[in-house]
This record gives sequence, C-alpha cells and structure tokens, in this order.
Amino acid sequence: MSTIVRLVDETTSDPRVQAIFADIKATKQTDRVPDIWRALANHPEHLELCWTRLKAIMKPGKVDLLTKEIVALAVSVTNGCRYCIHSHTAAVQKLGLDAEAYGEILAVIGLFNQMNRLVDGLQVEPDIMPKPWQ
Amino acid sequence: MSTIVRLVDETTSDPRVQAIFADIKATKQTDRVPDIWRALANHPEHLELCWTRLKAIMKPGKVDLLTKEIVALAVSVTNGCRYCIHSHTAAVQKLGLDAEAYGEILAVIGLFNQMNRLVDGLQVEPDIMPKPWQ
Amino acid sequence: MSTIVRLVDETTSDPRVQAIFADIKATKQTDRVPDIWRALANHPEHLELCWTRLKAIMKPGKVDLLTKEIVALAVSVTNGCRYCIHSHTAAVQKLGLDAEAYGEILAVIGLFNQMNRLVDGLQVEPDIMPKPWQ
Amino acid sequence: MSTIVRLVDETTSDPRVQAIFADIKATKQTDRVPDIWRALANHPEHLELCWTRLKAIMKPGKVDLLTKEIVALAVSVTNGCRYCIHSHTAAVQKLGLDAEAYGEILAVIGLFNQMNRLVDGLQVEPDIMPKPWQ
Amino acid sequence: MSTIVRLVDETTSDPRVQAIFADIKATKQTDRVPDIWRALANHPEHLELCWTRLKAIMKPGKVDLLTKEIVALAVSVTNGCRYCIHSHTAAVQKLGLDAEAYGEILAVIGLFNQMNRLVDGLQVEPDIMPKPWQ
Amino acid sequence: MSTIVRLVDETTSDPRVQAIFADIKATKQTDRVPDIWRALANHPEHLELCWTRLKAIMKPGKVDLLTKEIVALAVSVTNGCRYCIHSHTAAVQKLGLDAEAYGEILAVIGLFNQMNRLVDGLQVEPDIMPKPWQ
Repeated sequence: MSTIVRLVDETTSDPRVQAIFADIKATKQTDRVPDIWRALANHPEHLELCWTRLKAIMKPGKVDLLTKEIVALAVSVTNGCRYCIHSHTAAVQKLGLDAEAYGEILAVIGLFNQMNRLVDGLQVEPDIMPKPWQ
Repeated sequence: MSTIVRLVDETTSDPRVQAIFADIKATKQTDRVPDIWRALANHPEHLELCWTRLKAIMKPGKVDLLTKEIVALAVSVTNGCRYCIHSHTAAVQKLGLDAEAYGEILAVIGLFNQMNRLVDGLQVEPDIMPKPWQ
Repeated sequence: MSTIVRLVDETTSDPRVQAIFADIKATKQTDRVPDIWRALANHPEHLELCWTRLKAIMKPGKVDLLTKEIVALAVSVTNGCRYCIHSHTAAVQKLGLDAEAYGEILAVIGLFNQMNRLVDGLQVEPDIMPKPWQ
Repeated sequence: MSTIVRLVDETTSDPRVQAIFADIKATKQTDRVPDIWRALANHPEHLELCWTRLKAIMKPGKVDLLTKEIVALAVSVTNGCRYCIHSHTAAVQKLGLDAEAYGEILAVIGLFNQMNRLVDGLQVEPDIMPKPWQ
Repeated sequence: MSTIVRLVDETTSDPRVQAIFADIKATKQTDRVPDIWRALANHPEHLELCWTRLKAIMKPGKVDLLTKEIVALAVSVTNGCRYCIHSHTAAVQKLGLDAEAYGEILAVIGLFNQMNRLVDGLQVEPDIMPKPWQ
Repeated sequence: MSTIVRLVDETTSDPRVQAIFADIKATKQTDRVPDIWRALANHPEHLELCWTRLKAIMKPGKVDLLTKEIVALAVSVTNGCRYCIHSHTAAVQKLGLDAEAYGEILAVIGLFNQMNRLVDGLQVEPDIMPKPWQ
C-alpha cells in the first residue's frame, strides 16, 4: 500500500511494466511483486532505470549477496526507512543470517552511528588514510 | 588534530588513560593512538566506555571483522562523516578488500540511499516482513 | 492528531491564535486549520514566528509557488518526514503538477540522494565552483 | 581530487571509460571531466550505470532542467554534501537563476528543514492527503 | 511491540537478562521494562553493553538529568526517531519541564535544523572558534 | 568566508542590513558580524526574517540561554554542521560550561545517536507516552 500513489496492478497491460514485473518475480523467486515496484510503475521509464540498476548492483560479484544485503540494511537503518528495514531484514534472514549474527550487525550499526557523531562533535581531522588501491 | 579540544598526549600521566591507550595500540597493532581516542581522552570515563564497548562489538564473532568494518563504512558514508570514511576505508583495505570489491560495496551504499528516499517519497507500507528468528 | 500535544481547538478564545488561524485559512483558501498549526498553537509566540515566516517565504516572488513547493517536497523526502511528504505532495498536485512530472521530480530526488553519498564515500573535493552572483 | 581513490586520467586507454568521458563532456558542454566521474571510473561498470541513469533522469522532460537542478541543490544542502552543493549551485547559476531567486530557494530549503523537525517533534499525523493522480 | 524481533518476556529464565531487567526497573522506578530493552535482550551481551553504558552516561553528574534528557530529545527529533521522541518527551515532562519550557526547547530544535542547512548551503567556513578548555 | 556567495561588507550602505548588523553586534556583544550573517545579507529580507526569529527564540525565557545553546550544539552535531559545531561549542564555553560538563553533553549526544538507530533497526513501537501537558 502507498498513501501517495495508486499501486499498479500486476495484471497491467503495459508491456514494458509487464516485462519488468516478470523479471522481478523470476529474479527474486517470489510469486508477487513487492509494493515498492508497483508504486514505481506509475512512471515506467523510472521503474526500468531503477530495476535494471538494482539488478546489476545486487547480483553476486566479488562481494556475495548476503554482504550486499547487510550493507543495504545498515544504510536503511541509518536513514530510518521503515519499509526498507523490514524488507532487508527479511532478506538477510532468508539468506541465512541467524539471530546471533543479526544481533552483532545491529550492534555495529548502532556503534558507528554513535562514533560518527562523537567525531563530528570533536571535529577530528582524518589521520588514517587509505593507500591507493592496487 | 581537533579544532574543538586539545588532543591528550600519548605520554599522559593519567593511569586510566595510559592503560586504554596501551590497549588501543595492542588491539589495533599500531604504534600510535588515533586522534579520535586522544580527543575523547579529555573525559577519561567516556573514553573508557567508548573503547571497551567498541572493542567488545568489533571483535570477530559470528560475523567476521571485514564484514563489521564494511558495515562501519556503510554507516559512515550514509552519515557523511569525513574522519570515519577515511579510517574505515583504510580498515577494509588493510583487511584485504580489493579495489573491485570496494567498488561494489560503494555501489550498494549509493543504491540504497536512493531506494530509501524513493520509498519514503512514495510512502509505501512494509509488505515483506521478517519471521521471528529461531 | 498528535501523540505529543493536544491540538488547540479552532474555536480557541486566545485572540492571537484566532487571528493566525483565520490568516492560515484565508491564505491557504481552506476551511480548516491543518493539524501542524493547531499543534504549534500550544505556544502562541512560536506559532506566530513560524506562520509569519512561512507566509513571507512561501509567497510567490522571483520563484513561483510550484517551484517552492517542489523544493519543500525534496527536503521533506530527504528528511523522511511523513506528514510533510503527504502535505507537500498534495500541494504540488493542487498546483497542477501532473503524474508524469511528479515521477520525474521523484526520480531526481532519488538520484541525488545516491550521488551525494557516492561523492561522500569517495571524498571528492569540489572542482566546480559558482562565480560571484551579479 | 579524492583522498580515497586515485582519479582515472582523461587519457585512459579503457574504451568503455573513454566513451563515457566523451559523452560526459559532450552532454555537459565542458572540456574537462568533473572529478566525481573520474573517481567513479575506477569501477567502469558502476560508472556506466551512474552516468547513463543520471543522463536519462536529468534530460529535460515534463520538468525543465533548471527545476531539476534546483531539486538536486535542495537534496544536496539537506544532506550537507559539500561537492554537490558547489556543483549544483554552479549549475543553477549557469542556467540563469539570479541572486535574488537563489536567495528565495535557499530560504525555502532552510524553512522546511525546520518545519520537518517541528512536525517530527510534535508527531503530527498526516491530515492532508494527495488524491490519486490522473 | 517490535515488527522485527520477538520481545523477550520479563519472566525470562536467562540470569544475565533477569539481572539487567531488574536493574532497569529499579533505576527507572517503573514496574515494567520498556520494549526497547526487551527487544535488545535477544542478544544479552549487547543488552548489557547498552544498558550499563546508558546508565553510566545518564546518571546526574556535572550536568543534571533534565538537561541530559533535553539533549536526548533534541537528538531524537533531529533524527526523526518516533519511539525515542515519545519516550524522551515523556521523560522531560516527568522531570518537571512545563508546557511553556517544552515549547521553547522545540523552537530551538527547529531553528537550528534550519540554520544548519542555511550554513551548509552557503558553505560558510568556521570563524568563531572555541578556546582550549581549562 | 563562503565559497558560494560574497560576504556583505560590514560597511554596507543598505540601511536595512546596517540596522541588523548593528543589532547582531549589540545583542551578541561582539565587535564583528559573524560570517553566516554577512552571507545571508545578500538577501536582506531573508536576513531579517532569520535574525529577528533567532533573536526571539534565543532570548532567555522559561529556559535559560546555556540550555538553549546546548540544544543548538546537540542539533548541530547530529546534523554534522561544521560551522555550527564550532560556533555553538564556543557559545556554551563562553556561557560557562566547563570541560567536564562538555564531555558529559557530548557523551549524551553520541549515546542517543546510537540508541535512535537501534530502535529504528528493531522497529519498536512507542510504549511510553507523554501525558497532555497542564
């Protein structure tokens, strides 16, 4: 549900939206299209840009999918995005993160939200620099 | 350097601060105390609370240290904390993340900062819920 | 409704609040006072400061009202403020922004929430500077 | 300049990066590639995803380019992104926004960063809802 | 209630959690454990780290408890954290802040969320520096 | 200094700006106008709105000035605003906050930036509600 836009029906006759909805279901191996994609579908070009880009970035690469979903969760918690917190928590769970590991991840997220602000408050200049990557 | 407080010297005579500085160097296997800890040392009780807690949370557990540092980086980038972005980028690099994997992590951080705001803008209600953890 | 304070009734006997409520309804051409103003009315001096300032800033000037409401929406989405997202989406709609244009605006909001964080993550120094305005 | 990664040289021999750099210069009608794109070029696939998507979203459509750049500025100021604030201020200036109109835009950005937090503090529930778009 | 984790029952048989729950009730002089602590109790070590640290920081020191709770409220409103806004508003109220003083605090929170963004937008360099503390 | 706009000179011939500059110096008991006000002075109407409102909100009322400046600092640190962190740290120092009390305030700011995100991550619903204020 969205209180801003009407969700586009999964049975839409728009072929571009149909194709993306089918790809979302196949890629995520679910039998329904999550509401965020149905909301974005009011603007098919933007739906396509978002989905193709998310699909490209979230495929396993040098970094595995679970780590990528953990990053998505860390970002979503830091931004306080309710929908995303629910969906990325569900995702890390489905990918096998157990309760104890989840607790550790959450602790790290909380810790650095604190440390970031202590550093900002004290206005400490960077003293540990990365080297050029090889 | 800090433009807000004087950094406490590593040769401080305060035994509580001395002990923590020694532990920081031993734990991080470095020969100098990073400036954030020298800035926090103006308030020894708070220094101790922060360090003992960071040490407890950042030890490898069910989740390995590299994943924890990746989470720290995701939080720091989302909050725009300059010092922390530099130090956690240096940390993931030292732990072996290569340039390509770093590029993937950064892409995920950028992607969900976008998706979080699209979801907020559309006010989509959560439709994917985690199950109670076992 | 507010879960923090009681909303001041539109029939309040406080003459200062009465005058502002009347001005809000006249300016916005509505027959009810939005809840945010009824919540702020618990502190009449602050209500007056907020309303007179909002009225001064949101009058059409060199920049038209629709553009100003689009800016208000961009800020509110970036901050994740539920009430404000609803009211400014309603405002841009009432001022004639159609579904397609709304979709474009939302896409831009999402895009730069991503780009801002990529730039922060990479710590790129400004290289494109505005000139002094004439 | 970036303190995190080396900037990829404009004379790079990577054909994919070369093509994007050329397109950036043609599209923006400038003779140099802004540093953010040279930083992203360390990961050519991500560079391509970002650039093609930015180009698609930032082309004039139902909404003109100046309004899109104003939205980009509002997002960047709200997120406090230094590089982006400079580049989008330069962009709105180049597109003809004069000093007075800029002052009005900035005032609106400031105002709603305040109003968003007053609403959050008072936890006011949405009472003004958009209608389904036609 | 939490939609992410099961809340640990107050009658839990885990002795570490039992001891902390008892301490929370004694310290806060309430007869029930607030839900945030019951949610954190799924990970007893993290619960303990959070509670002992919060207890140490929130005891009256050079700064009184009401001022500390006002700071907690300012942070929570700026971050838009619903649960925390409710609980810290209740806390300042219980500690004797009256409606008028609350209105003044909220006004200050709103004001500097605005001023912060105006300063960011104008990219003004610091010109007022604190002296080294004695 | 500002990298976005020219700072209006204190010797400006604009009588409206002159009057506000004089009032700023008298109110703050300083002999120079802080750069943020000189930057805002490019748009005299906005300068006046900001200054008169800040002056009204920051006068001592039911809440004393030091507490108000502490709130301003908490907001500025949470938003990561460099200029504001410096100026409000200088302000609390000038108003008599000593190093130990400052350390306590900073600890509270850090703590609730952490707690806010833990609560968001766990999506805990409010269970402690304020009563209607008397």
